Amino acid sequence: MTLGVPPTCNTLTFASRPHVVSCASVVGPKEDKGPLSGSFDIVASSDAVDESSWEKAERTLLLSSISHCLSKVQVDPKEVEALLAGDLLNQIISSGYAAREFDAPYFGLYGACSTFVEALILGAVFVDGGYRDPVLCASSSHHYSAERQFRMPTEFAAQRPPQSQWTVTGAGSVLLAATPGPGAEELGVVITSATPGRVVDYDVTDPYDMGSAMAPAAVDTMAAHFRDTNRSPGDYDLILTGDLGRVGHALALDLASGIGLNLEESRFLDTGLLIYSEDQGVDSGGSGCACSAVVFCGHIWRLMMKREAQTALLVGTGAIHSPVACKQGESIPGLAHAILFEVDDRDREE
Amino acid sequence: MTLGVPPTCNTLTFASRPHVVSCASVVGPKEDKGPLSGSFDIVASSDAVDESSWEKAERTLLLSSISHCLSKVQVDPKEVEALLAGDLLNQIISSGYAAREFDAPYFGLYGACSTFVEALILGAVFVDGGYRDPVLCASSSHHYSAERQFRMPTEFAAQRPPQSQWTVTGAGSVLLAATPGPGAEELGVVITSATPGRVVDYDVTDPYDMGSAMAPAAVDTMAAHFRDTNRSPGDYDLILTGDLGRVGHALALDLASGIGLNLEESRFLDTGLLIYSEDQGVDSGGSGCACSAVVFCGHIWRLMMKREAQTALLVGTGAIHSPVACKQGESIPGLAHAILFEVDDRDREE
Repeated sequence: MTLGVPPTCNTLTFASRPHVVSCASVVGPKEDKGPLSGSFDIVASSDAVDESSWEKAERTLLLSSISHCLSKVQVDPKEVEALLAGDLLNQIISSGYAAREFDAPYFGLYGACSTFVEALILGAVFVDGGYRDPVLCASSSHHYSAERQFRMPTEFAAQRPPQSQWTVTGAGSVLLAATPGPGAEELGVVITSATPGRVVDYDVTDPYDMGSAMAPAAVDTMAAHFRDTNRSPGDYDLILTGDLGRVGHALALDLASGIGLNLEESRFLDTGLLIYSEDQGVDSGGSGCACSAVVFCGHIWRLMMKREAQTALLVGTGAIHSPVACKQGESIPGLAHAILFEVDDRDREE
Repeated sequence: MTLGVPPTCNTLTFASRPHVVSCASVVGPKEDKGPLSGSFDIVASSDAVDESSWEKAERTLLLSSISHCLSKVQVDPKEVEALLAGDLLNQIISSGYAAREFDAPYFGLYGACSTFVEALILGAVFVDGGYRDPVLCASSSHHYSAERQFRMPTEFAAQRPPQSQWTVTGAGSVLLAATPGPGAEELGVVITSATPGRVVDYDVTDPYDMGSAMAPAAVDTMAAHFRDTNRSPGDYDLILTGDLGRVGHALALDLASGIGLNLEESRFLDTGLLIYSEDQGVDSGGSGCACSAVVFCGHIWRLMMKREAQTALLVGTGAIHSPVACKQGESIPGLAHAILFEVDDRDREE
């Protein structure tokens, strides 16, 4: 497989430019101690959120982000016409149990850490095509529920290798609609195109090295996006992968350069590197479905609303990592989906 | 929650009537010993399919169904513009690893046993809206991989209670396209509408009783479908749930009758009851993502092609069953998505 040259044009264009009507980000205490502190809507007082299990805590964070996303723009949950959500837990139970609290039709998704962007792409298709409006796209992750499921319960105190990433505890939700709507307090960010990705396997077998497993897929999807749109990385203010971490980000830069895709380091960022500082003990950086979700719904969305970035390509990256498959000698394939946000000044009354 | 009265109209209408261009069903030996023997495209010689694990066997069945679906109508895999797939395994690895073999953008889905219909609904949206064409919708399950993951490895020889269901070993794939296409050897079945469902929880806590967990959701979605379309069950030749089994099917009839939805037993069938005979030791009947997939891609599709059924409403039913959540005292919510197939005589050259 040659990176970035899939046989079909994989980029979808949304002529109606679905509106990001509302965003909400909810995080745990550790995330709010990082460089993006202050950009999140809600900070939980503890990782347990007063629940009796990490799994229930994660669900509570997800429910909290959905409720806050709707209440920010005074949208009644009963008006929502579809809930697209997924998470890292087996049977995506955070999403399934959260969906139980809503009347909206529920589409469960699994794209590992690319799930947030997968939900946004399908949500944008629903809104742009006039099938469902408004729709809620959400995802969550939790450090302690993920460690227990994918590697070791943290009580085991296994040593973390330097290439490992720290799963973000939190949840992000986005409400997409055909029009900004009367309840919207803030207007102005739209989705104009998206490039869903294919599964790319570079034969990574280290279950701690998710960054290297995902980097080839990220480059593949970015290259396909620029090929399809006849644009170059310099055309966008921000290109954000989520979440490659330090190891994966460096590898992505190398791989991209190798196929002639020149990503400027100043505008090619990674949500896994943005969310924590190096002194927070997170090794290669942040990860998890919530990583790109809370960084977009917090920091990036605010940057765009302040017009400090007019365009942002968010490249959700996932590793199809299964502990069972690893034990059976399988490699860990990667997957990346890209979505383009633009500031929509047409709606700005200035 | 009152069954069948969600606040929004949840039924999507596909004006362009996406075509079911090809279907393929692959099953294990046990499935071919049931009443639908002869309706499947490929029968594996053993449940292990010469693979070293049940998980790898399941993936092989899924790949086989996808390849056969495409080759039946001479469609090159490189022409496929999206692969929508899911299965029951953690991280939906059957689908993720199968997708690695294709260049098409991959959307991973999880709706438990409703996943096949979830994939078809999203696929129909892609085709109808002109976003992707053609698209491949697929799902798989395997008795032995599912038992090991959700309950006990079969080597443990745990006794099965009578309400338990037997996960179907197999995979089904459907190719949807805007036009029947020059390669299509058989023409004539289209998708005209769909009703995605909400999560419904009737507080079932028995991890063996999936039928009772799913039946309320099935009735909820069917009632919403008939409310939205202003039709009644008598308007369709077949209404198929997949897969409630004996216990769930009886409960669904009762619940439906209780809200004034009169399902005639002669045309209200369940794929979990169709696929096995009572003497096959499957207790309440078949289940698994593959159950509705192989029964539709095999038996139902053939019935429609022979014009023995003009309309079929397929109601994919899933139980959001998580062993972890069960141990934490949670109930098992259900979810059901409905999709309407119709014979399209306009394309029939007779």
